[in-house]
Amino acid sequence: MRGRVRIAGLGPGDQALVTPEVTAALAEATDVIGYIPYVARIAPRDGLTLHASDNRVELDRARHALDLAARGRRVVIVSSGDPGVFAMAAAVFEAVEAGPANWRDLDISVLPGITAMLAAAARAGAPLGHDFCAINLSDNLKPWDLIEKRLRLAVEGDFAMAFYNPRSKSRPEGFEKTLHLLRDACGPDRVILFARAVSTPEENLNVTTLGNATPDMADMRTVVIVGSSRTRVVDTSRSPIVYTPRFTPE
Amino acid sequence: MRGRVRIAGLGPGDQALVTPEVTAALAEATDVIGYIPYVARIAPRDGLTLHASDNRVELDRARHALDLAARGRRVVIVSSGDPGVFAMAAAVFEAVEAGPANWRDLDISVLPGITAMLAAAARAGAPLGHDFCAINLSDNLKPWDLIEKRLRLAVEGDFAMAFYNPRSKSRPEGFEKTLHLLRDACGPDRVILFARAVSTPEENLNVTTLGNATPDMADMRTVVIVGSSRTRVVDTSRSPIVYTPRFTPE
Repeated sequence: MRGRVRIAGLGPGDQALVTPEVTAALAEATDVIGYIPYVARIAPRDGLTLHASDNRVELDRARHALDLAARGRRVVIVSSGDPGVFAMAAAVFEAVEAGPANWRDLDISVLPGITAMLAAAARAGAPLGHDFCAINLSDNLKPWDLIEKRLRLAVEGDFAMAFYNPRSKSRPEGFEKTLHLLRDACGPDRVILFARAVSTPEENLNVTTLGNATPDMADMRTVVIVGSSRTRVVDTSRSPIVYTPRFTPE
Repeated sequence: MRGRVRIAGLGPGDQALVTPEVTAALAEATDVIGYIPYVARIAPRDGLTLHASDNRVELDRARHALDLAARGRRVVIVSSGDPGVFAMAAAVFEAVEAGPANWRDLDISVLPGITAMLAAAARAGAPLGHDFCAINLSDNLKPWDLIEKRLRLAVEGDFAMAFYNPRSKSRPEGFEKTLHLLRDACGPDRVILFARAVSTPEENLNVTTLGNATPDMADMRTVVIVGSSRTRVVDTSRSPIVYTPRFTPE
């Protein structure tokens, strides 16, 4: 058997948002590897071994997958959303670069998925319909000063912004600092959207302003989108529509 | 019949990258509306009217869809990629905001898709595995000075960058200016990736450096990704892997 690694995006939660490409890869897998709640989404079957591991062991998980593939297994590493956006793909390639030479000969590919910010944007309207930035607010992997610098530059460029990992239990103060900085820089009327667990039974959308936003509106299952100065809210008989016009005048 | 509008992302080209949600919406549609090459991807069937229109008539197309839905039709507006990223969703909500009051009561939703930059990133490895910006380089809809400002700020923040609509036949000089600016700001060794028509038979990937990049490497079917200062290229026995590490040191 020819070994391989597929790094697959399961999308935000709903099975209707899993691509047929990912479904096919899972059907052919001998091993599925990933963070516990993502592996829990995979139906057990004969011939398939599920390897669930805890958070923050991304490199161990990547090495485990590469080692299994080198021994001839068909491995699928599962991420939620898209594996290339603050998820497992970069970790796997870090492991390949640092690992034994034969890992470079493995058949490895990334199967894209619907990433959280785009699922959230779709639910709200089109807040990312113009130029935007995606920023991981976790300071596990980079210094806070760099996050702050990027926030200031994104505001200066009048980008819309999408934030992943806005608020962890261990470091809730980072998101509070983010809200302060943005309120100072953009004013209290700027649109902010909290999108939690989009496409799951726990889905919750909260459209508000920086002036009314509080840190507890986000948790680790929330993606936060902040509009540009041109982002608009349209009231309807249903939930409000948030969109950023395509056109910026001179 | 209850009218509705679904603004659906067809992904980059391969049917295996179309979500089941979009496939289901198309199966129930009475009308499909979109730019000619996207509508060409939809199989004709009894009871389905296909409305293909030329490029640059996004608002007309949006109003047509809303008008059909107001008359009770089940309309799907098709975009390639994700409709919320430089595609039809913002145009539809612009039309809703400016249109008759009853359009605000319509059942409108956005069905996300695999956007071009994430399909391209998946093919190359994980170049968008850390903070990044998405910028539309077309100056149809915004002044060139704003594009240039955003490019400079994105470089200053050391974001990876994804560019949509890099080069039009009518204004090829914009992309040449972009390459000059980036070469001056980032140096000649910075990684740049040209990904054309990913997941179609015409797919072509070109991993090079800013020093070796030329404007003719991009056309309107190309997404361009420029790495951050930390983006790496790993040589393998297959095509090179491009990835941006998750970790940035102090």
